[in-house]
Amino acid sequence: MKEMVLVNGARSSSVEVLDRGLQYGDGVFRTLKVVAGEVRWWEDQYRKLAEDCAALAIPCPDKQALGGEVRKIAAGPGVGVVKIIVTRGAGQRGYAIPAAAAASRIVMGFSGGGNETREVRVRWCDLRLSVQPRLAGIKHLNRLENVLARSEWSDPEIAEGLLLDEAGHVICGTMSNLFLHEQGRLVTPDLCGSGVAGVARGRIIRAAGRHARQVRVEQCSRERLLAADGLFLCNSLIGVWRVAELENRHWPDDGWAEKLRSWLDEDH
Amino acid sequence: MKEMVLVNGARSSSVEVLDRGLQYGDGVFRTLKVVAGEVRWWEDQYRKLAEDCAALAIPCPDKQALGGEVRKIAAGPGVGVVKIIVTRGAGQRGYAIPAAAAASRIVMGFSGGGNETREVRVRWCDLRLSVQPRLAGIKHLNRLENVLARSEWSDPEIAEGLLLDEAGHVICGTMSNLFLHEQGRLVTPDLCGSGVAGVARGRIIRAAGRHARQVRVEQCSRERLLAADGLFLCNSLIGVWRVAELENRHWPDDGWAEKLRSWLDEDH
Repeated sequence: MKEMVLVNGARSSSVEVLDRGLQYGDGVFRTLKVVAGEVRWWEDQYRKLAEDCAALAIPCPDKQALGGEVRKIAAGPGVGVVKIIVTRGAGQRGYAIPAAAAASRIVMGFSGGGNETREVRVRWCDLRLSVQPRLAGIKHLNRLENVLARSEWSDPEIAEGLLLDEAGHVICGTMSNLFLHEQGRLVTPDLCGSGVAGVARGRIIRAAGRHARQVRVEQCSRERLLAADGLFLCNSLIGVWRVAELENRHWPDDGWAEKLRSWLDEDH
Repeated sequence: MKEMVLVNGARSSSVEVLDRGLQYGDGVFRTLKVVAGEVRWWEDQYRKLAEDCAALAIPCPDKQALGGEVRKIAAGPGVGVVKIIVTRGAGQRGYAIPAAAAASRIVMGFSGGGNETREVRVRWCDLRLSVQPRLAGIKHLNRLENVLARSEWSDPEIAEGLLLDEAGHVICGTMSNLFLHEQGRLVTPDLCGSGVAGVARGRIIRAAGRHARQVRVEQCSRERLLAADGLFLCNSLIGVWRVAELENRHWPDDGWAEKLRSWLDEDH
């Protein structure tokens, strides 16, 4: 499939070399699943995009205009994934934010995104995530830690790598958020120092509340994770994966993966 | 001045949106000073570029080919700065490094870079640098911390902001490395966890050795910095700045700035 891309609303396959997204990773992004030509969870995705832009003081593109571009790309033949990048736009040399910078928006369509996987094997990554409260939770373009972590394995049987921060807290997967089931209760790692607070994670937390089950957002050690009754990974594309195997630890199906999947899909 | 840019050797002002430099900040860069149409310290700059590429497993562009492109851009009218970006090249969606990725090289010419400043006022930044030993020292494209730190002030009288890491160690300026003069001895902060190990810093350390003055590479607290007899900032464009004022602390000229400048310029 030829990629379909809109750059600031116009068909293009390139951005200016002076764009601060390239120069400094000065921007944010979103990955949206497309089902039958329509993006899922647009309201949540746009809200998170706006929050992330605000956190970096990047003007967020107008919702209607961006939504129109996203729908246009999503409707393309074979598109299963739409990725949105918003950068601080083109600047001159230097870290200082130009007064006149106009944000760039890039909307890309990709095939794929279909996912029949439900149970996965995962591994621990050696790389430890750094702690930066000013950037934690934001899906920004500074993703070298994820790239390095994902490069630690090539075995296609391993679906994801789990990451600890430098203090040894479990944070997330290289591309997913994490939930633990502990004796009827759900826990998800605190992301105040590292990691990305994804839309799927947010939807599960909110849905749990609607079902009178509070999700605890807490620090999780490696030992706590290994002692959990169930372990689940989520993001907007994969939905929910049940972790069946982590190195020598095996988990039987505790029934919670299906529950999380149904919560994730709830309209509300 | 119109920017002059070569992308993979050809005149261009844009890169593919799928370039991993944009998607993830998956690349490295260099900033070179141009004097009378020629770049300074090419051997050092290329060596550091090759080291940084190796640290991220990005194939480094061939020295002769890249050198030719750099000379071509440097010879352009009014060019005072050449910036080189090397990325892991275009990929598909996802953090995994594509087997077939060919690095992209971007060589840009900018005006400016002339610098008559010799003494500066600086400030402390509030942002604390995160600690990531896998990325420390590398001049990579994940520079949001620098962007956020530089956005903390707009007073043109303040030339630079000093950064501490999360543990309170002094690391660097937003765009410069730091040296302390302590009773006839030079100290520069240890960069094993954060910061960029710049070419100017490396040249000063090596030159000091030739002059039988070892530079201590050590952890520096804020208190140690304030107690120093002199404080100096360096990079490839500014050369050496003497810090005359840091909030309420004033330093008289101890004569070391001139010494560091002459060392920096030594051929060897």
